[in-house]
Amino acid sequence: VTPTLIDHVGIAVDDLEQAVERYRGLLGDEPVHRETVADQGVEEVLFAVGGSFVQLLGALGADTPVGTFLARRGPGIHHMAYRVDDLEAELGNLRADGAQLIDETPRPGSRNTLIAFVHPRSTGGVLMELVQER
Amino acid sequence: VTPTLIDHVGIAVDDLEQAVERYRGLLGDEPVHRETVADQGVEEVLFAVGGSFVQLLGALGADTPVGTFLARRGPGIHHMAYRVDDLEAELGNLRADGAQLIDETPRPGSRNTLIAFVHPRSTGGVLMELVQER
Repeated sequence: VTPTLIDHVGIAVDDLEQAVERYRGLLGDEPVHRETVADQGVEEVLFAVGGSFVQLLGALGADTPVGTFLARRGPGIHHMAYRVDDLEAELGNLRADGAQLIDETPRPGSRNTLIAFVHPRSTGGVLMELVQER
Repeated sequence: VTPTLIDHVGIAVDDLEQAVERYRGLLGDEPVHRETVADQGVEEVLFAVGGSFVQLLGALGADTPVGTFLARRGPGIHHMAYRVDDLEAELGNLRADGAQLIDETPRPGSRNTLIAFVHPRSTGGVLMELVQER
Protein backbone atom coordinates (compact mmCIF):
# COMPACT_ATOMS: atom_id res chain seq x y z
CA VAL A 1 0.00 0.00 0.00
CA THR A 2 1.21 3.49 -0.83
CA PRO A 3 -0.98 5.73 1.31
CA THR A 4 -0.92 9.47 0.62
CA LEU A 5 -2.47 10.45 3.95
CA ILE A 6 -4.04 9.21 7.14
CA ASP A 7 -7.60 9.58 5.84
CA HIS A 8 -9.24 9.32 9.26
CA VAL A 9 -9.19 7.75 12.68
CA GLY A 10 -12.54 6.21 13.60
CA ILE A 11 -13.62 6.55 17.23
CA ALA A 12 -16.55 4.49 18.56
CA VAL A 13 -18.70 6.53 20.95
CA ASP A 14 -21.65 5.65 23.19
CA ASP A 15 -23.57 8.87 22.70
CA LEU A 16 -22.91 10.55 19.36
CA GLU A 17 -24.42 13.96 20.20
CA GLN A 18 -22.49 14.15 23.47
CA ALA A 19 -19.28 13.14 21.68
CA VAL A 20 -19.84 15.74 18.94
CA GLU A 21 -20.25 18.38 21.63
CA ARG A 22 -17.05 17.22 23.34
CA TYR A 23 -14.98 17.18 20.14
CA ARG A 24 -16.39 20.53 19.05
CA GLY A 25 -14.77 21.82 22.23
CA LEU A 26 -11.61 19.70 22.07
CA LEU A 27 -10.86 20.52 18.43
CA GLY A 28 -12.19 24.08 18.56
CA ASP A 29 -14.16 23.69 15.37
CA GLU A 30 -17.47 22.61 13.86
CA PRO A 31 -17.85 19.15 12.29
CA VAL A 32 -17.58 19.17 8.50
CA HIS A 33 -19.76 16.18 7.67
CA ARG A 34 -22.50 13.94 9.07
CA GLU A 35 -23.84 10.83 7.42
CA THR A 36 -25.78 7.70 8.27
CA VAL A 37 -24.18 4.65 6.65
CA ALA A 38 -26.94 2.07 7.00
CA ASP A 39 -25.04 -0.91 5.60
CA GLN A 40 -22.24 -0.34 8.15
CA GLY A 41 -24.73 0.26 10.95
CA VAL A 42 -23.28 3.63 11.95
CA GLU A 43 -23.96 7.31 12.02
CA GLU A 44 -20.70 9.20 11.56
CA VAL A 45 -19.62 12.77 12.21
CA LEU A 46 -16.35 14.09 10.79
CA PHE A 47 -14.07 16.81 12.09
CA ALA A 48 -11.26 18.03 9.80
CA VAL A 49 -7.68 18.08 11.13
CA GLY A 50 -5.21 19.09 8.45
CA GLY A 51 -6.14 16.98 5.43
CA SER A 52 -7.34 14.16 7.70
CA PHE A 53 -10.54 13.56 9.62
CA VAL A 54 -11.49 12.51 13.12
CA GLN A 55 -14.52 10.28 12.64
CA LEU A 56 -16.94 9.82 15.53
CA LEU A 57 -18.97 6.63 15.11
CA GLY A 58 -22.32 6.06 16.78
CA ALA A 59 -23.82 2.55 16.47
CA LEU A 60 -27.27 2.25 14.87
CA GLY A 61 -27.94 -0.81 17.04
CA ALA A 62 -26.37 -3.20 19.55
CA ASP A 63 -25.92 -5.92 16.90
CA THR A 64 -23.83 -3.75 14.54
CA PRO A 65 -20.01 -4.01 14.36
CA VAL A 66 -19.57 -0.76 16.30
CA GLY A 67 -22.31 -1.80 18.74
CA THR A 68 -20.52 -5.05 19.57
CA PHE A 69 -17.17 -3.21 19.78
CA LEU A 70 -18.69 -0.80 22.32
CA ALA A 71 -20.18 -3.66 24.36
CA ARG A 72 -16.84 -5.49 24.40
CA ARG A 73 -14.31 -2.69 24.84
CA GLY A 74 -16.19 0.52 25.55
CA PRO A 75 -15.70 3.78 23.68
CA GLY A 76 -12.35 4.33 21.98
CA ILE A 77 -10.44 4.12 18.73
CA HIS A 78 -12.16 1.62 16.45
CA HIS A 79 -10.11 1.70 13.24
CA MET A 80 -7.57 3.63 11.23
CA ALA A 81 -7.99 4.57 7.59
CA TYR A 82 -5.36 5.37 4.96
CA ARG A 83 -6.11 7.30 1.78
CA VAL A 84 -4.94 5.63 -1.43
CA ASP A 85 -5.12 6.59 -5.09
CA ASP A 86 -6.04 3.20 -6.55
CA LEU A 87 -7.92 0.97 -4.13
CA GLU A 88 -8.40 -1.89 -6.56
CA ALA A 89 -4.66 -2.10 -7.23
CA GLU A 90 -3.84 -1.81 -3.51
CA LEU A 91 -6.14 -4.71 -2.67
CA GLY A 92 -4.27 -6.73 -5.27
CA ASN A 93 -0.96 -5.81 -3.64
CA LEU A 94 -2.22 -6.77 -0.20
CA ARG A 95 -3.60 -10.06 -1.49
CA ALA A 96 -0.26 -10.83 -3.13
CA ASP A 97 1.46 -10.13 0.21
CA GLY A 98 -0.84 -12.61 1.95
CA ALA A 99 -2.87 -10.02 3.88
CA GLN A 100 -6.32 -11.09 5.05
CA LEU A 101 -8.89 -8.82 3.41
CA ILE A 102 -12.32 -8.24 4.91
CA ASP A 103 -13.46 -6.70 1.61
CA GLU A 104 -12.10 -8.43 -1.47
CA THR A 105 -13.34 -5.62 -3.71
CA PRO A 106 -13.94 -1.90 -3.15
CA ARG A 107 -17.37 -0.94 -1.83
CA PRO A 108 -19.08 2.43 -1.35
CA GLY A 109 -18.16 4.33 1.80
CA SER A 110 -19.35 7.64 3.18
CA ARG A 111 -18.50 10.92 1.43
CA ASN A 112 -18.95 9.12 -1.91
CA THR A 113 -15.66 7.26 -1.39
CA LEU A 114 -14.65 3.71 -2.19
CA ILE A 115 -13.45 1.70 0.80
CA ALA A 116 -12.18 -1.70 1.88
CA PHE A 117 -11.25 -3.11 5.28
CA VAL A 118 -8.21 -5.24 6.10
CA HIS A 119 -8.35 -7.73 8.99
CA PRO A 120 -6.51 -6.77 12.21
CA ARG A 121 -4.74 -10.13 12.00
CA SER A 122 -2.68 -8.73 9.11
CA THR A 123 -1.97 -5.33 10.65
CA GLY A 124 -0.79 -5.95 14.20
CA GLY A 125 -4.21 -5.80 15.84
CA VAL A 126 -5.47 -2.65 14.12
CA LEU A 127 -8.61 -2.71 12.01
CA MET A 128 -7.34 -0.98 8.85
CA GLU A 129 -9.43 0.72 6.20
CA LEU A 130 -8.34 1.97 2.79
CA VAL A 131 -10.19 4.92 1.28
CA GLN A 132 -10.17 6.16 -2.29
CA GLU A 133 -11.85 9.46 -3.10
CA ARG A 134 -13.92 9.67 -6.30
CA VAL B 1 -7.20 22.94 20.89
CA THR B 2 -6.48 24.04 17.33
CA PRO B 3 -4.55 21.11 15.86
CA THR B 4 -2.85 21.60 12.50
CA LEU B 5 -2.43 17.90 11.79
CA ILE B 6 -2.86 14.41 13.12
CA ASP B 7 0.75 14.15 14.30
CA HIS B 8 0.68 10.39 14.74
CA VAL B 9 -1.30 7.34 15.73
CA GLY B 10 0.50 5.21 18.31
CA ILE B 11 0.14 1.45 17.95
CA ALA B 12 1.23 -0.87 20.78
CA VAL B 13 2.92 -4.01 19.45
CA ASP B 14 4.14 -7.20 21.09
CA ASP B 15 7.23 -7.67 18.96
CA LEU B 16 8.66 -4.43 17.59
CA GLU B 17 10.94 -5.96 14.94
CA GLN B 18 8.16 -8.16 13.60
CA ALA B 19 5.79 -5.19 13.52
CA VAL B 20 8.35 -3.03 11.71
CA GLU B 21 8.70 -5.76 9.10
CA ARG B 22 4.94 -5.98 8.71
CA TYR B 23 4.44 -2.22 8.38
CA ARG B 24 7.37 -1.93 5.99
CA GLY B 25 5.32 -4.25 3.75
CA LEU B 26 1.92 -2.72 4.52
CA LEU B 27 3.02 0.88 3.95
CA GLY B 28 5.50 0.07 1.20
CA ASP B 29 8.21 2.21 2.71
CA GLU B 30 11.11 2.31 5.16
CA PRO B 31 10.65 3.72 8.66
CA VAL B 32 11.86 7.30 9.04
CA HIS B 33 12.81 7.29 12.72
CA ARG B 34 13.64 5.01 15.63
CA GLU B 35 14.10 6.11 19.22
CA THR B 36 14.14 4.68 22.72
CA VAL B 37 12.22 6.94 25.10
CA ALA B 38 13.31 5.62 28.47
CA ASP B 39 11.06 7.80 30.63
CA GLN B 40 8.00 6.57 28.72
CA GLY B 41 9.24 2.97 28.77
CA VAL B 42 9.03 2.52 25.01
CA GLU B 43 11.05 2.03 21.89
CA GLU B 44 9.27 3.65 18.98
CA VAL B 45 9.57 3.35 15.21
CA LEU B 46 7.92 5.91 12.92
CA PHE B 47 6.63 5.52 9.38
CA ALA B 48 5.67 8.70 7.48
CA VAL B 49 2.21 8.92 5.89
CA GLY B 50 1.58 12.32 4.35
CA GLY B 51 2.67 14.79 7.03
CA SER B 52 1.66 12.36 9.78
CA PHE B 53 3.35 9.34 11.33
CA VAL B 54 2.36 5.81 12.20
CA GLN B 55 4.15 5.12 15.48
CA LEU B 56 4.89 1.52 16.45
CA LEU B 57 5.44 1.22 20.20
CA GLY B 58 7.34 -1.62 21.81
CA ALA B 59 7.29 -1.81 25.62
CA LEU B 60 10.64 -1.73 27.44
CA GLY B 61 9.13 -3.85 30.19
CA ALA B 62 5.89 -5.40 31.46
CA ASP B 63 5.44 -2.71 34.12
CA THR B 64 5.49 0.20 31.63
CA PRO B 65 2.28 1.92 30.44
CA VAL B 66 2.49 0.21 27.04
CA GLY B 67 3.40 -3.09 28.72
CA THR B 68 0.29 -2.99 30.90
CA PHE B 69 -1.84 -1.91 27.91
CA LEU B 70 -0.58 -4.94 25.97
CA ALA B 71 -1.28 -7.29 28.89
CA ARG B 72 -4.80 -5.91 29.28
CA ARG B 73 -5.95 -5.40 25.68
CA GLY B 74 -3.35 -6.95 23.39
CA PRO B 75 -1.73 -5.17 20.46
CA GLY B 76 -3.64 -2.30 18.88
CA ILE B 77 -4.05 1.46 18.75
CA HIS B 78 -2.77 2.96 21.98
CA HIS B 79 -3.20 6.71 21.54
CA MET B 80 -3.77 9.48 19.06
CA ALA B 81 -1.63 12.62 18.82
CA TYR B 82 -2.47 16.03 17.41
CA ARG B 83 0.15 18.56 16.35
CA VAL B 84 -0.24 22.03 17.83
CA ASP B 85 1.69 25.26 17.47
CA ASP B 86 1.65 26.37 21.11
CA LEU B 87 1.37 23.48 23.56
CA GLU B 88 1.55 25.64 26.68
CA ALA B 89 -1.38 27.76 25.49
CA GLU B 90 -3.38 24.68 24.45
CA LEU B 91 -2.95 23.13 27.89
CA GLY B 92 -4.33 26.35 29.33
CA ASN B 93 -7.33 26.15 27.01
CA LEU B 94 -7.99 22.53 27.94
CA ARG B 95 -7.69 23.30 31.64
CA ALA B 96 -10.14 26.18 31.26
CA ASP B 97 -12.57 23.79 29.54
CA GLY B 98 -12.32 21.38 32.48
CA ALA B 99 -10.33 18.68 30.65
CA GLN B 100 -8.36 16.27 32.81
CA LEU B 101 -4.68 16.63 31.93
CA ILE B 102 -2.16 13.85 32.53
CA ASP B 103 0.67 16.34 31.99
CA GLU B 104 0.03 19.78 33.43
CA THR B 105 3.04 21.20 31.62
CA PRO B 106 4.85 20.29 28.38
CA ARG B 107 7.56 17.64 28.66
CA PRO B 108 10.15 16.38 26.19
CA GLY B 109 8.95 13.80 23.66
CA SER B 110 10.73 11.92 20.93
CA ARG B 111 12.01 13.72 17.82
CA ASN B 112 12.96 16.66 20.06
CA THR B 113 9.28 17.60 20.43
CA LEU B 114 7.31 18.88 23.40
CA ILE B 115 4.36 16.73 24.39
CA ALA B 116 1.53 16.40 26.88
CA PHE B 117 -1.13 13.73 27.38
CA VAL B 118 -4.83 14.30 28.07
CA HIS B 119 -6.83 11.71 30.02
CA PRO B 120 -9.21 9.46 28.04
CA ARG B 121 -11.97 10.51 30.44
CA SER B 122 -11.99 13.91 28.73
CA THR B 123 -11.81 12.65 25.14
CA GLY B 124 -14.40 9.91 24.81
CA GLY B 125 -12.12 7.03 25.79
CA VAL B 126 -9.15 7.97 23.61
CA LEU B 127 -5.75 8.63 25.16
CA MET B 128 -4.89 11.94 23.49
CA GLU B 129 -1.44 13.45 23.07
CA LEU B 130 -0.54 16.96 21.95
CA VAL B 131 2.78 17.47 20.15
CA GLN B 132 4.65 20.67 19.46
CA GLU B 133 7.66 20.61 17.19
CA ARG B 134 10.68 22.66 18.21
